[in-house]
Amino acid sequence: MTHELPSWVASANGHADFSLHNLPLGVFSRGEERPRGGVAVGDFILDLGFALEAGLFRGEAQRAAELAAQETLNAFFAAGGAARVALRQALQALLRADHPQREQLEELAEYLLAPQSACRMHMPARVGDYTDFYVGIHHATQIGRLFRPDNPLLPNYKHVPIAYHGRASTLGVSGKAFKRPKGQTLPPGQEAPVFGPCRRLDYELELGIWIGPGNAQGESIAIGSAAEHIAGFCLLNDWSARDIQAWEYQPLGPFLSKSFASTLSPWVVTAEALAPYRQAQPARPAGDPQPLAYLYDERDQAQGALDIELEVLLRTPRMVEQGLPAQRLALSNTLNMYWTVAQMVTHHTVNGCALQPGDFFGSGTLSGPDAGSCGSLLELTQGGKQPLQLPGGETRTFLEDGDEVILRARCQRPGLPTIGFGECRGQVLAAG
Amino acid sequence: MTHELPSWVASANGHADFSLHNLPLGVFSRGEERPRGGVAVGDFILDLGFALEAGLFRGEAQRAAELAAQETLNAFFAAGGAARVALRQALQALLRADHPQREQLEELAEYLLAPQSACRMHMPARVGDYTDFYVGIHHATQIGRLFRPDNPLLPNYKHVPIAYHGRASTLGVSGKAFKRPKGQTLPPGQEAPVFGPCRRLDYELELGIWIGPGNAQGESIAIGSAAEHIAGFCLLNDWSARDIQAWEYQPLGPFLSKSFASTLSPWVVTAEALAPYRQAQPARPAGDPQPLAYLYDERDQAQGALDIELEVLLRTPRMVEQGLPAQRLALSNTLNMYWTVAQMVTHHTVNGCALQPGDFFGSGTLSGPDAGSCGSLLELTQGGKQPLQLPGGETRTFLEDGDEVILRARCQRPGLPTIGFGECRGQVLAAG
Repeated sequence: MTHELPSWVASANGHADFSLHNLPLGVFSRGEERPRGGVAVGDFILDLGFALEAGLFRGEAQRAAELAAQETLNAFFAAGGAARVALRQALQALLRADHPQREQLEELAEYLLAPQSACRMHMPARVGDYTDFYVGIHHATQIGRLFRPDNPLLPNYKHVPIAYHGRASTLGVSGKAFKRPKGQTLPPGQEAPVFGPCRRLDYELELGIWIGPGNAQGESIAIGSAAEHIAGFCLLNDWSARDIQAWEYQPLGPFLSKSFASTLSPWVVTAEALAPYRQAQPARPAGDPQPLAYLYDERDQAQGALDIELEVLLRTPRMVEQGLPAQRLALSNTLNMYWTVAQMVTHHTVNGCALQPGDFFGSGTLSGPDAGSCGSLLELTQGGKQPLQLPGGETRTFLEDGDEVILRARCQRPGLPTIGFGECRGQVLAAG
Repeated sequence: MTHELPSWVASANGHADFSLHNLPLGVFSRGEERPRGGVAVGDFILDLGFALEAGLFRGEAQRAAELAAQETLNAFFAAGGAARVALRQALQALLRADHPQREQLEELAEYLLAPQSACRMHMPARVGDYTDFYVGIHHATQIGRLFRPDNPLLPNYKHVPIAYHGRASTLGVSGKAFKRPKGQTLPPGQEAPVFGPCRRLDYELELGIWIGPGNAQGESIAIGSAAEHIAGFCLLNDWSARDIQAWEYQPLGPFLSKSFASTLSPWVVTAEALAPYRQAQPARPAGDPQPLAYLYDERDQAQGALDIELEVLLRTPRMVEQGLPAQRLALSNTLNMYWTVAQMVTHHTVNGCALQPGDFFGSGTLSGPDAGSCGSLLELTQGGKQPLQLPGGETRTFLEDGDEVILRARCQRPGLPTIGFGECRGQVLAAG
């Protein structure tokens, strides 16, 4: 592949996140305008609706752009990989530096390209169902160790891509603040619960997955076809109220401890952009059980893992006051996933459950094996027992009001252009 | 109140389910027509769109009928109780036997009233999120006893209205068959799972609840206002794959064991129709902990329980062959709910979780305390150990291919007209 695609959009050249190698899709608006589909290019958003009006697409790319220019990307996701590839190729051709009509395009730029800083991002799609997995094996092990030091992983973990249904109505995009949740908790040593604001509020660093065409109820998606149903990727912060969770979760799993808010990054990074960062699955050590046949595909084993570097940063109100930059809390990687995204899709549908375009998956918290790669404060502070030291003399066990958590993701390998996800930010407001 | 409202629609008079005292809403179609809103009246469905065209409504009732005549009831649910009451009063006036323009109405009947037998019912609303509760205390106790004979109820049960998120994409209305799910199970005494069709397929008898206006994210619905957000009621069969569930559910709860199919009855019975069947909450015995303040409301304690008789019937292929009627397996009642529907709504939003018009709740399995009132086969056969004897010489521990389960619900009290929910039917097909 070409390692550098120069563009007449100057800010795209060498852009750490949004060069022509990425071209993620999203839904944006300026001022009071109606939200509509666009593509991140350098510091700008290419307005697909304007590009269509200007006649810049033809054939399959035009049909794909018509779907992607809508108020949500659901119809574009439904159209599958051929539409994505057609649009990507047309955009790369349109934006390249040596385009034969470069001057005419530059004259249109004022309308075609909206500065990202002047735009507001929206949810990329209407989410039908949201499913949160638990495929971060180091997270599962570290959380399990807090409760069962000798036997941290449950017996099903290496056989079943564990997941549960999440709440779709409170998914929001980066930048949306939320109130600290209130709820029932059981104070240590007590027998009766109390009601009040959560005292152990946490983040969770996750990969988000957007679902494409999907399957009819009663049908299943074979592992070899699963990739066709993955529309794209983003970051997800699955905020968690640990004290509410500990009291409510038996026997049916987490509920109000998660459903108050989840934050995702607004850009949908495509499988095509991530293709150079695929590799064999590293997290399943030799000696682990072989996946059951329905979860096993040779190509998926060889190419199903993603090498995406993940970062968590924290900015407290005092750090803002003192002019200190956000503090990195963790650096992890999607290679910490024990199951591939294809395995997640196939497992989800093996019982006949219908996936629909715009359904959303979270990977579960993607921690690495050590303290510098913890995807949650629960792990980083050992269940709140070892406070975190922050610049400016502060400490944290869990999140305080005003704290802002920032997730970032980037693909970087020697000899390859970088691909970035943009940020996933969220701030904790005081309980209402 | 009037105990009998005679109608010029003869089949409505004394109808066990659909007299003028009920008037449930639903979405129906005939042949290839587009689905649209209607109201069950005797053996017919009143076509709200035709009634509007004929100018049969005025003022607030007209606006309500415009919302209820759409392809889904979401907008009608969003409009809340005032719209429901206006439409109900207008319909009762329109359909009463002594209507001054009775003859003109009877001339319209051919268009206004579609025979239920000639219509197909659809999902009443587009479900945003589906939440399944666990408020049937006898079910929770009986299931708990299978695992923990000495301590069947978990410590949180009498404090927390336990719930988990369910799968919205596989909710369907009565009459829709579904394939037996496949999945991973752990055979007794084994350490490694096997893959194949579910062998312990079960039903669950539940009350379904449709959500009305709802709340913005970050806000909560106070217990005193919860009733305003309950749009109506139906029956729900939350089919369950017990063997898949036992292997997958730790630590995050049921997932594929439930998400293959859930079946609901298509008619939305309103709070107004059920008003005469409200009473004080009986299932919380003296000595149980008082609900926390956010779940406590005097009016809800005095009037929050519902007296709805629930019935489960089974029809096997052999019973069909032999011309035997469906066999009753259980008779239960919504009085077996430990928490009121208002408490469920308030608890769901206390953390700031947004409810939206058309969201759907299940109550959880509503068993009574004895064998004749078990809402699932898991309870009725003691975990599959005590086979059920059926007419025709058959036995069942769990459901077999071709079995049809029928749920019914009816309100009946001396001196009051009966109110019925219609049926909730579903048939098990062989695994695909």
